Amino acid sequence: MILDGKQTAQTIRCELREQISEITKRGLRAPKLAIIIVGHNPASETYVANKMKACAEVGVEAERIAFESDVTEQQLIQEVQRLNTDPMVDGFIVQLPLPEHINESAVLSAIDFHKDVDGLTPANVGRTVQGLPSIVSATPRGIRELLARYAIRTEGKHVVVIGRSNIVGKPIAMLLMQRPYLSLPGMSAASLGDATVTICHSKTRDLASICRTADIIIVAAGCPKLLTADMVKEGVTVIDVGINRIDDPASPRGYRLVGDVDFEQVAPKAAYITPVPGGVGPMTIVSLLQNTLQAYTASMNQQQSA
Amino acid sequence: MILDGKQTAQTIRCELREQISEITKRGLRAPKLAIIIVGHNPASETYVANKMKACAEVGVEAERIAFESDVTEQQLIQEVQRLNTDPMVDGFIVQLPLPEHINESAVLSAIDFHKDVDGLTPANVGRTVQGLPSIVSATPRGIRELLARYAIRTEGKHVVVIGRSNIVGKPIAMLLMQRPYLSLPGMSAASLGDATVTICHSKTRDLASICRTADIIIVAAGCPKLLTADMVKEGVTVIDVGINRIDDPASPRGYRLVGDVDFEQVAPKAAYITPVPGGVGPMTIVSLLQNTLQAYTASMNQQQSA
Repeated sequence: MILDGKQTAQTIRCELREQISEITKRGLRAPKLAIIIVGHNPASETYVANKMKACAEVGVEAERIAFESDVTEQQLIQEVQRLNTDPMVDGFIVQLPLPEHINESAVLSAIDFHKDVDGLTPANVGRTVQGLPSIVSATPRGIRELLARYAIRTEGKHVVVIGRSNIVGKPIAMLLMQRPYLSLPGMSAASLGDATVTICHSKTRDLASICRTADIIIVAAGCPKLLTADMVKEGVTVIDVGINRIDDPASPRGYRLVGDVDFEQVAPKAAYITPVPGGVGPMTIVSLLQNTLQAYTASMNQQQSA
Repeated sequence: MILDGKQTAQTIRCELREQISEITKRGLRAPKLAIIIVGHNPASETYVANKMKACAEVGVEAERIAFESDVTEQQLIQEVQRLNTDPMVDGFIVQLPLPEHINESAVLSAIDFHKDVDGLTPANVGRTVQGLPSIVSATPRGIRELLARYAIRTEGKHVVVIGRSNIVGKPIAMLLMQRPYLSLPGMSAASLGDATVTICHSKTRDLASICRTADIIIVAAGCPKLLTADMVKEGVTVIDVGINRIDDPASPRGYRLVGDVDFEQVAPKAAYITPVPGGVGPMTIVSLLQNTLQAYTASMNQQQSA
């Protein structure tokens, strides 16, 4: 069965639109996201435009804050501190990459974790690991949501994560391994954790035999056709996070996008599998919107209890 | 071969004494640790006394800051904030548990991660996960040090961690899984990470067969004789973090301490194994001293570059 990220993301967008419409009907302001962009990297411009558009679709107010690429680290950190204390901004993100003269980690670390809707600050990552209320970064949140929407249980399952990046491999491993602390709309607790998790990477020996013991495989390695049919057991669930461009003279653009999984060969053996494109990808932008609403709700609850 | 934590900890204490003596001979102040203790829990009193004694042995200045158990959360957080900015205090810890009316997580989260020598703040945990310079909590640091001192390589090895606590299971899994970012005195990079790590826990199915594929098993489950001989392969390395009291009428105290491993049966199959007591335990207090020196050194370097 195909795990249809595109359709699922669409469903979630409808839900978000409705939730936000309920909020504004009650006379409250809409949630607001600010996006800091530095310089004129074309890919970054596109990503930011897509995020602004996604916000508009569901009723999240969005502000684009642009700096030229000669901005100093100090100036950026000052803007971060201003946004940290701006009561009208619920969450904000700094579009990466930043110019070379700026220490990304220093800028990100300055973000108040309550407003860190990309979930990339050490404080949020640490809170996620410790099972405290936290904001989970877009891709792991999207994966978890996709599993939950298809009622795929993780409790007691053997999950193999291939790839150990800070934005995918490490956080999804932590989320699926731990006790199910969080309950999110539409999610049953059983799909939120309690898995036995193995984290594999470039130094792993005999990846194939480890994968053959997996009930669920999450591939985020950035390597086309890394996961082949001989590496999976019948009935496996496969989540493909890879997005790779490969040459394709038949395509008008001269390339096409493929994941890290040999989809044609693996799909017949899989109980569930995500396509690329249309799998995890569409879930990530919707995660950003969900995180913004989560930050808004937490901030409103905070104000009410204060 | 026995991994002698007691002897290794003794060696490290000698090294620390020498390093700190070098510092004070240069006319600089000694590193300083402050310990906050609340109430009169006998176990906590003993732990704090042991930590004060360990500091004295190596030349770390130690201050005990005591509150009665009716102290408010706000008062404790104020003390934390005072210590955060006290330039004469390099690191401090809050002895747990705290009285029930105090939110431990709120108090710990207030600690500046630079001075968090217990390595329990979300910011430090997140930095460890992200591979940024961080302070690692005592037990995982002690395990890593013990592996390194015995030149046990982890690169490409299959490590099975049993237990998913915030203070042992999760951080040691993260440390051994990731790229070897840190180099510590006496450690070769190869012993610091790059392992394939599986995290098991109470919901894991067929723990035995997973353990039989492990090159290194770290048991931190709090369950006597959980790991038995039929669960390990020949030549395995076993790190036993458990400390359990079991009745023993033959002992003058009426009980004795055992780990989570059936030592008598497992030891003959193991290439390396830690005893209980005398394995991981003695390494943890020495980790606190190392963390204090690390915080001191970082603070001194910071002052010099400022």
